Amino acid sequence: MKYDIGLIGLAVMGENLALNMESKGFTVAVYNRTTAKVDEFINGKASGKAFAGAHSLADLTAMLKSPRVVMLMVKAGKPVDDMIESILPHLADGDILIDGGNSFFEDTRRRTMELAAKGIRYIGMGVSGGEEGALKGPSLMPGGDKVAYETVAPLFTAIAAQVADGPCCSYVGPDGAGHYVKMVHNGIEYGDMQLICEAYALLSEVVGLSAKDLHTVFAEWNQGELDSYLIEITRDIFAVMDETTGRPLVEMILDKAEQKGTGKWTSQSALDLGVPTPTITEAVFARCMSAYKDERVNAAAILKGPKTSYNGDKQAFIKAIHDALYASKICSYAQGFALLRAASQTYNWNLNFGDMALLWRGGCIIRARFLERIKDAYRNDQNLANLMLDPFFASVLERTQANWRQVVMTAKQLGVPTPAFSSSLDYFDSYRRAVLPANLLQAQRDYFGAHTYERVDRQGKFHTDWISGR
Amino acid sequence: MKYDIGLIGLAVMGENLALNMESKGFTVAVYNRTTAKVDEFINGKASGKAFAGAHSLADLTAMLKSPRVVMLMVKAGKPVDDMIESILPHLADGDILIDGGNSFFEDTRRRTMELAAKGIRYIGMGVSGGEEGALKGPSLMPGGDKVAYETVAPLFTAIAAQVADGPCCSYVGPDGAGHYVKMVHNGIEYGDMQLICEAYALLSEVVGLSAKDLHTVFAEWNQGELDSYLIEITRDIFAVMDETTGRPLVEMILDKAEQKGTGKWTSQSALDLGVPTPTITEAVFARCMSAYKDERVNAAAILKGPKTSYNGDKQAFIKAIHDALYASKICSYAQGFALLRAASQTYNWNLNFGDMALLWRGGCIIRARFLERIKDAYRNDQNLANLMLDPFFASVLERTQANWRQVVMTAKQLGVPTPAFSSSLDYFDSYRRAVLPANLLQAQRDYFGAHTYERVDRQGKFHTDWISGR
Repeated sequence: MKYDIGLIGLAVMGENLALNMESKGFTVAVYNRTTAKVDEFINGKASGKAFAGAHSLADLTAMLKSPRVVMLMVKAGKPVDDMIESILPHLADGDILIDGGNSFFEDTRRRTMELAAKGIRYIGMGVSGGEEGALKGPSLMPGGDKVAYETVAPLFTAIAAQVADGPCCSYVGPDGAGHYVKMVHNGIEYGDMQLICEAYALLSEVVGLSAKDLHTVFAEWNQGELDSYLIEITRDIFAVMDETTGRPLVEMILDKAEQKGTGKWTSQSALDLGVPTPTITEAVFARCMSAYKDERVNAAAILKGPKTSYNGDKQAFIKAIHDALYASKICSYAQGFALLRAASQTYNWNLNFGDMALLWRGGCIIRARFLERIKDAYRNDQNLANLMLDPFFASVLERTQANWRQVVMTAKQLGVPTPAFSSSLDYFDSYRRAVLPANLLQAQRDYFGAHTYERVDRQGKFHTDWISGR
Repeated sequence: MKYDIGLIGLAVMGENLALNMESKGFTVAVYNRTTAKVDEFINGKASGKAFAGAHSLADLTAMLKSPRVVMLMVKAGKPVDDMIESILPHLADGDILIDGGNSFFEDTRRRTMELAAKGIRYIGMGVSGGEEGALKGPSLMPGGDKVAYETVAPLFTAIAAQVADGPCCSYVGPDGAGHYVKMVHNGIEYGDMQLICEAYALLSEVVGLSAKDLHTVFAEWNQGELDSYLIEITRDIFAVMDETTGRPLVEMILDKAEQKGTGKWTSQSALDLGVPTPTITEAVFARCMSAYKDERVNAAAILKGPKTSYNGDKQAFIKAIHDALYASKICSYAQGFALLRAASQTYNWNLNFGDMALLWRGGCIIRARFLERIKDAYRNDQNLANLMLDPFFASVLERTQANWRQVVMTAKQLGVPTPAFSSSLDYFDSYRRAVLPANLLQAQRDYFGAHTYERVDRQGKFHTDWISGR
């Protein structure tokens, strides 16, 4: 008997994807560098199911139908290159290799080229949804060899999350496109999480809500425009009590955030492509800032701010925070999609932005009702320059903006940090300005560096001897 | 006759540095790839002075005293590698090669290692001050081979800008340290320029000042705490009239800012090292945003904001803008120095932060009275965690913060973008918080990805099954 797919790497994501594939009727051969893990899986969760375990890459590849389909679920970076090198001698012309890890898109670009030259068809696939998504239906973002993708499409569309419009899996674009789209998904996820944290800070510190109240507020928000997986789990989190202290568990957690690099990569790529992504980047910096716990504790004793007492209408302020969160979220997604647009042009990926929104409609961490609207926006106008210009989103921004401004102003007055709310508002206010003060900046650059400037009234590059002209 | 130094690359910076060296009593042999430029220089600006022109690298290197000292003033990137490759056969063991361009510090690290293995002593030197600085006294940031630097120190300390505390040139640290420090200098320069632009936007749009009024305000500001080269040239810029229209020239300049990459590198390095530099990064993004001129003109017709009419006391608001600029500037420098601190630890550079401030005290674009205070802060405490904690700067932040908050609140109310002012304030408010809402973020990460969290009440890594715990 020959198997449909070989899966390498039995950490939790690999195991759950394998179980998902088998549950949809596919036969799966598995391999893991530490082979004890193979036996443990085969005799455990895989027992009685259509799995085979391999103890070597030779065994694994001998078990597969032709052309072979092998999926790597190993740690991004060198382990992927090492595994490719090890498996290459066991593959034949036309075999398909899929990297389902969080690989850096430039690595995927390089590997696609290198492997194509060796007759191997490579797919870099973004996988989102965490452990549960991998098992029950992830969001899949495959990029690379398009014909190869069509060969494996029946399997991946079957295991992906399913929404009304279809499966959350479709071909993204050539070479590194799949991993790039996954990277931007994660960048947007950083933004969403930071925005929720800022709402939490304001609701608890300024409005004075308890964890129980917060549970209620997020439960209400999850019924409306903000309906999304991250709001839903936030609601749940506030209901969980700590067994040892009897207090809400969230209050017992240390405020030092960690990160694995995809948010950082998103910001670095945005800087390379000249696309402003301030909300996403402030979210990355907020995680960095949280990690400086000891310095902050020390600084709190030295740098004083205003008292955070709020005398306004609390219900109205809760509604205002809701609106600030929604408006900021639109700005954050607008930045993410503007980045995808620039990347698509730079790398000739021809991305379909409506499809991207659909890919994220289910399965992944940022899944939300809201993505339906983004899909619609790009289906209505594939060349939309910025999501904020879509009539639906423009009207939301118009409706929410007074509350949004009020929240940022109140936060600044009371000394509550809201870097993602503030930077989103500045993004909105910058983008909607026909004229920005960069004329002065160009004058400065020309003054000290003779960098020249353009004029508003005629074409060309101009230089002024500012010192004599004074 | 043998010459003290060979200089390669006769663009304006190279020419002016050569002229500066000769004026201080050093003999200079020059070479340029396009040799016509050599003759033009020798027969022009260099005529009658202690220069020699070379038409080949063999000629140039034959003219120099031993050990040879050669300075490259060529475009950063591949041209530097190409020139190194070309000149290597003409150099001997112990010769000194200096790169005075804006090279990426990782390139300088690589070249230092590669050349050391070949017996060539390499110095990566940051040079700031623009054309005028190069001619009359730049700020010099040499890094790399320390013994080699001591050999050339008499020349470079002689041509550098001189301030009360000495020359703006001293050894920075090993390998890429000099170019790194120059990069951060430029990142800070981006921040300073953006902050001034935001002050300009508020002063002109909200307060309604004319270019003439702005000239007066910046002239006043340059007499006080903000005294600096960039405030000085801003003052000058507002006084320059356009010959063709008779209007202030600054108003005829197109608001599309350009950039050459050092601000971007600073932000990307900050992301790599996990150091929040929101003010600098917002300044980079503001340049990117300004470049989207056509999109902004289009968006201005669709996305409406509040009316920018201000009814408060205008003189008080001008003073408040002054304070917001000063406080934000402190935050921006605090970010830059925090980045230098992290880089010094990461790359084992053992940077002396007081010396860095002194290097920037004169000659360079960010030169300012203010840097004296930064030097003092690090002379008082070389291990200062953040500049904002220094008693002087902490007291300035305390004194200015009410006005600073008022400016950001007014800007948000009126819809004037102030990304650098806002992000500076959020940086201050984040850093001075013992507790940030990142506990919720860690709960979310543990919920969907089993990433674990730390607790406030005991050591260890914890994971919760949030769904069952609900």
